Amino acid sequence: MLDLPFLPFCVLLGGLGFVCVAFVSAWCQHWRGGFALDGSAQTFNWHPVLMVTGMVVLYGAAALVYRLPSTWSGPKLPWKVLHGALALAAFGLAVLGLAAVFRFHNDHGTPNMYSLHSWLGLATVLLFSCQWLAGFGAFLLPWAPAWLRALYKPVHVFFGSTILMLSVASCMSGINEKLFFSLKNGTTEYKHLPAEAVFANTLGLLILLFGVLVLGALARPSWKRPDADSPDSCQVPAPLR
Amino acid sequence: MLDLPFLPFCVLLGGLGFVCVAFVSAWCQHWRGGFALDGSAQTFNWHPVLMVTGMVVLYGAAALVYRLPSTWSGPKLPWKVLHGALALAAFGLAVLGLAAVFRFHNDHGTPNMYSLHSWLGLATVLLFSCQWLAGFGAFLLPWAPAWLRALYKPVHVFFGSTILMLSVASCMSGINEKLFFSLKNGTTEYKHLPAEAVFANTLGLLILLFGVLVLGALARPSWKRPDADSPDSCQVPAPLR
Repeated sequence: MLDLPFLPFCVLLGGLGFVCVAFVSAWCQHWRGGFALDGSAQTFNWHPVLMVTGMVVLYGAAALVYRLPSTWSGPKLPWKVLHGALALAAFGLAVLGLAAVFRFHNDHGTPNMYSLHSWLGLATVLLFSCQWLAGFGAFLLPWAPAWLRALYKPVHVFFGSTILMLSVASCMSGINEKLFFSLKNGTTEYKHLPAEAVFANTLGLLILLFGVLVLGALARPSWKRPDADSPDSCQVPAPLR
Repeated sequence: MLDLPFLPFCVLLGGLGFVCVAFVSAWCQHWRGGFALDGSAQTFNWHPVLMVTGMVVLYGAAALVYRLPSTWSGPKLPWKVLHGALALAAFGLAVLGLAAVFRFHNDHGTPNMYSLHSWLGLATVLLFSCQWLAGFGAFLLPWAPAWLRALYKPVHVFFGSTILMLSVASCMSGINEKLFFSLKNGTTEYKHLPAEAVFANTLGLLILLFGVLVLGALARPSWKRPDADSPDSCQVPAPLR
């Protein structure tokens, strides 16, 4: 693969994440009427912004913490706290994003949890909550035994990538669904591809690119901690085996 | 992770793949009017069946060929041919699946390529065509130099997983979109979650589970070829380095 160092990649990825958040915010502000907290359609608009910011961009940042070369030596605890804190912030935004759509549905008499997008999205957030709690219990609380950490670590790593993949799939189905809902009147029908549709479709592809780049960075062997395959996840030196 | 041997896992995965194909076929047959080749809605119904069968189930089978322990010794060429042939069959079904939806749109005066689902799906198939051609050129044609194979192999492996991820995201957005299109009349509205919606949402989750299991199997270190990290992809022994 291209021999790009991690830090310039991070700068590019951070820029792309910023563009994703800017695009989803601009979509909701410019075409969907902006933001409010009164249960109206403007309340719904927090949903895409918070989910993209939390479950894609912040989540991606949390996932990549251990790829920073500065985390490879010295005490591990501060980096674990950063990883957990970023993930918790992502989870918090996701919960607020879910609250926004439930509030909008309830205030409009629309049933919750019927579309495949909603099933997929809620499953993703529930899986993320399990992942965070299990990670906290196994890696941040000091009394988890080394064998448990060693056993759980590959599972945590695998579900870390999987949850990001599910988040991206949720975004794709959600943007698609929202455009079919919003663009159904004469002059602006989705199928005539008005400017809003091109803009929001492009947002979808940018989110996808962000997700693929994070998954690629996670999978790249030369960017992993040199001891990434060892079962050591302790904050104190492990006994010799 | 659970210490499941690969072959029983394959049997379970094959069963799940069969269930996915059976579900998508039953959905189109029982609720969407069955199949035809006349440009009607029954022509469209080939689209989901062919895409799920090709881009998810057959593609997953192709991706897992090198995880069969019997491919780890002896001549590699027959397994390469099997891998390439399964991928080509998957690609062929995908092209037929695209032809079905273009035919349906054209016969009904519906524009093509406006939804995010269509952008995502076509990008996935185009990426797959590049992947297949590059894989054929680098690994099956005998004159590709070893350094090129070594350079390209991790890229091929990464895009192999990525394309499956994109396929699953395309299926999610496509099933969601189709249900919003189909279930918009009084008694069967999608939001009232009729039997068809539960069935097709469940199909979406089964496809997702299939994709995640394939990606998990591909990522599992103990199921990789013992020499998976070496640059050898030649059909003849490589010179000593």
